[in-house]
Amino acid sequence: MYTIESLQSLVAKAIVDYSAKNNTDSLQEPIHYLLGLGGKRMRPALTLLATDLFGGDVPSALPAAMSIEVFHNFTLMHDDIMDNAPLRRGNVTVHEKWNTNTAILSGDAMLIEAYQLLCGYSGSQIKQILPLFNDTALGVCKGQQMDMEFEKRSDVSVEEYIEMIRLKTAVLLGGALEIGGIIANATAPDLEHIRLFGEKLGISFQLRDDYLDAFGDPENFGKQVGGDILSDKKTYLYLTAIARCDAHQKAVFDQWHGNTDMAKIEEIKSIMIATGADQAILDVSQQYYEEALNHLDRINVTDDRKATLRALAAHLLHREV
Amino acid sequence: MYTIESLQSLVAKAIVDYSAKNNTDSLQEPIHYLLGLGGKRMRPALTLLATDLFGGDVPSALPAAMSIEVFHNFTLMHDDIMDNAPLRRGNVTVHEKWNTNTAILSGDAMLIEAYQLLCGYSGSQIKQILPLFNDTALGVCKGQQMDMEFEKRSDVSVEEYIEMIRLKTAVLLGGALEIGGIIANATAPDLEHIRLFGEKLGISFQLRDDYLDAFGDPENFGKQVGGDILSDKKTYLYLTAIARCDAHQKAVFDQWHGNTDMAKIEEIKSIMIATGADQAILDVSQQYYEEALNHLDRINVTDDRKATLRALAAHLLHREV
Repeated sequence: MYTIESLQSLVAKAIVDYSAKNNTDSLQEPIHYLLGLGGKRMRPALTLLATDLFGGDVPSALPAAMSIEVFHNFTLMHDDIMDNAPLRRGNVTVHEKWNTNTAILSGDAMLIEAYQLLCGYSGSQIKQILPLFNDTALGVCKGQQMDMEFEKRSDVSVEEYIEMIRLKTAVLLGGALEIGGIIANATAPDLEHIRLFGEKLGISFQLRDDYLDAFGDPENFGKQVGGDILSDKKTYLYLTAIARCDAHQKAVFDQWHGNTDMAKIEEIKSIMIATGADQAILDVSQQYYEEALNHLDRINVTDDRKATLRALAAHLLHREV
Repeated sequence: MYTIESLQSLVAKAIVDYSAKNNTDSLQEPIHYLLGLGGKRMRPALTLLATDLFGGDVPSALPAAMSIEVFHNFTLMHDDIMDNAPLRRGNVTVHEKWNTNTAILSGDAMLIEAYQLLCGYSGSQIKQILPLFNDTALGVCKGQQMDMEFEKRSDVSVEEYIEMIRLKTAVLLGGALEIGGIIANATAPDLEHIRLFGEKLGISFQLRDDYLDAFGDPENFGKQVGGDILSDKKTYLYLTAIARCDAHQKAVFDQWHGNTDMAKIEEIKSIMIATGADQAILDVSQQYYEEALNHLDRINVTDDRKATLRALAAHLLHREV
């Protein structure tokens, strides 16, 4: 069995090799700039972990893991254009450093390269991987579309919100794991369980991240605490508080809408606490976490092989194993 | 054997069916709007023609033909953003009708759907098609990148120009044909010849199109005659005239640069004629046409099966069979 850290460094080395081989022209330069910005490389590590879980050959899963990472970075490059983001991981985004056209076109090339990385597998493996990859990728696009639409809608339900984060964030974790399983020739039921483990874990993680965005410790939380509140983002917290609040509390929401004064954060948080939205989101996150573990339990390999994934899940959700 | 027209109508029907099945959400709507704008459907017809040439089952090649058409329309959707184009086939472009973000994201989904359309083939066929599709798609991106870069460069050579049109336009014609050949289980040498037939024909066609943009009959040429001259586009005509002109002619070029007065068209055309650039581009187009036919000749099927492709090539280049 590999540790998460050893898999992450396998991926880091693969990315350096990949960029050294391909960084030859002006279309490629922004691709390798973005890939080189780092990140935890969690998604490709999941692919390798799944291959290891099912007793497959981990190095042979590296191109698929790279495909997942290149795809993920493609979504970042295009999302940053759409979100008008100036920074990515503390560095200037591609569309700011070059221009929007370059970011569109290099992103397109990146998506194609994600498919290119799958070409070395056998015909029967590609036949299994390709539809999964496509469904996952289309899901991510659909999630981004929903996220953008929610900004303009005032009638978003919590169910729709969960479906949005499932598509935008969680399906890629599930897909990354399932592809690793395919390479290890896992059975169909096990592939289903490993994918759903990733998907449920992804939803649980995103909900907890939304909670921390409002209630996290500024010392430990990577982003600015309160950012979602300042931008009136329709998260589970926001939607639950709105659904439960009385006329007076609703008036406070309305009064602060569109305002980005820092005083807004504590005022809105107090309503989130008063309506129990803060506890509600933790409860739902916990439910998805348990569902994830239930799927991991049902995978037909010995329990000791599951230890790394179980530890990873606990680590991601800041929970005890 | 099928006629070109019968294959084009097969494709037209497949597009209607495809849109009826998928046109379900806001991400899909722009995709089917663009696909529905028409066009000659030449690229998917080429895929079907190649399958027919090698005695394959034409209906079984329809998903691959659709994949080529969906990919082509993806490039149109993103190119229209990059070129800031208000119209496509006489209709409002997607980024104008919706917005840029929608055009980016629906274009991304379209590229993924192009891959999705390949999933029904056998593992061994997908294993052959996927790398070809990726190389073709990356070539098209690289061609678009070169085209955009040429606008800002003053040292473009005719060789670079031909490489740009090969990538931006011709490789997709070659790829469309080769995929049709793969589905008909053509041999490796035949696949190489059919691809190069398409590529050389594409270069020949684009050069002739550049010629017609300056010297075509306004009655018959689909676009505004002189558009390339008005925008100082560095076509083969322009580059050859610049390379051959004397100091006085160069001064005329310089004087008109950036000007879009209609009088510019006749002035620049007279230099193109005086330097023989008009004849040079026709000669090079003819050379590529002959190279294309040479590859068609060398394909190992009886000559009568090649009649449709030969007629199509002659029709595209306005030449006698």
